[in-house]
Amino acid sequence: MRFDHVGVATDDAAALADLYAELFDAPVVHEETFGGLDVTFLDLGGDGYFELLEPVDDDTTIARYLSENGPGIHHVALATDDVAAALDAARDAGVDLVDEEPRPGAWGHDVAFLHPKSTGGALVEFVQH
Amino acid sequence: MRFDHVGVATDDAAALADLYAELFDAPVVHEETFGGLDVTFLDLGGDGYFELLEPVDDDTTIARYLSENGPGIHHVALATDDVAAALDAARDAGVDLVDEEPRPGAWGHDVAFLHPKSTGGALVEFVQH
Repeated sequence: MRFDHVGVATDDAAALADLYAELFDAPVVHEETFGGLDVTFLDLGGDGYFELLEPVDDDTTIARYLSENGPGIHHVALATDDVAAALDAARDAGVDLVDEEPRPGAWGHDVAFLHPKSTGGALVEFVQH
Repeated sequence: MRFDHVGVATDDAAALADLYAELFDAPVVHEETFGGLDVTFLDLGGDGYFELLEPVDDDTTIARYLSENGPGIHHVALATDDVAAALDAARDAGVDLVDEEPRPGAWGHDVAFLHPKSTGGALVEFVQH
């Protein structure tokens, strides 16, 4: 596996995208509204991204995360060529899964999340481009 | 800039290293005790790492982070060829700095942290190998 992106929960993706583009030389490469969120990808170079997640719907995990924790790093995503196989391996390792099967994610990717209680408190996503 | 690592605060770096090595195909490539922390780097491939941070000294920011937040993702680090220049640019952009100048970090790297209140709640580190 390899690093794909860090997901950041925010109340203002447009302002944060402007700041990150300037600070980190990370231009916006994709924007869409998906699953009740405005999702903005910034290219970090070397196949890495920031994913900025701003709720447009209060009934989303990101809206609840923001109200409970405030803005900040929400998850880390690792790229794999086969999310289903990665989930099988995680299941075999005794890891609890948020998503038992790959599901459609933003930018046309297949994604699945592992439960943070099984991964040292870190919310980890598998993503397949 | 490019992704360098995600830092994960943990009470048990050895167990988490074993799990991440298996789950993410990320072998341990460096271990040291630095600044009151047991620090373990796992190679994610593509020049990316996990950095596991376990306090051996209660008077560390990671020990305080764990007691306040529990284990999980602590920061994201971006690699640059010139931390001092990156800090100057951040200062010019109005970003508050945790470290006004580069300082020695683990693994012989020069590092500096930006204040998360200036970067959308995400704790960001610049690192120069």
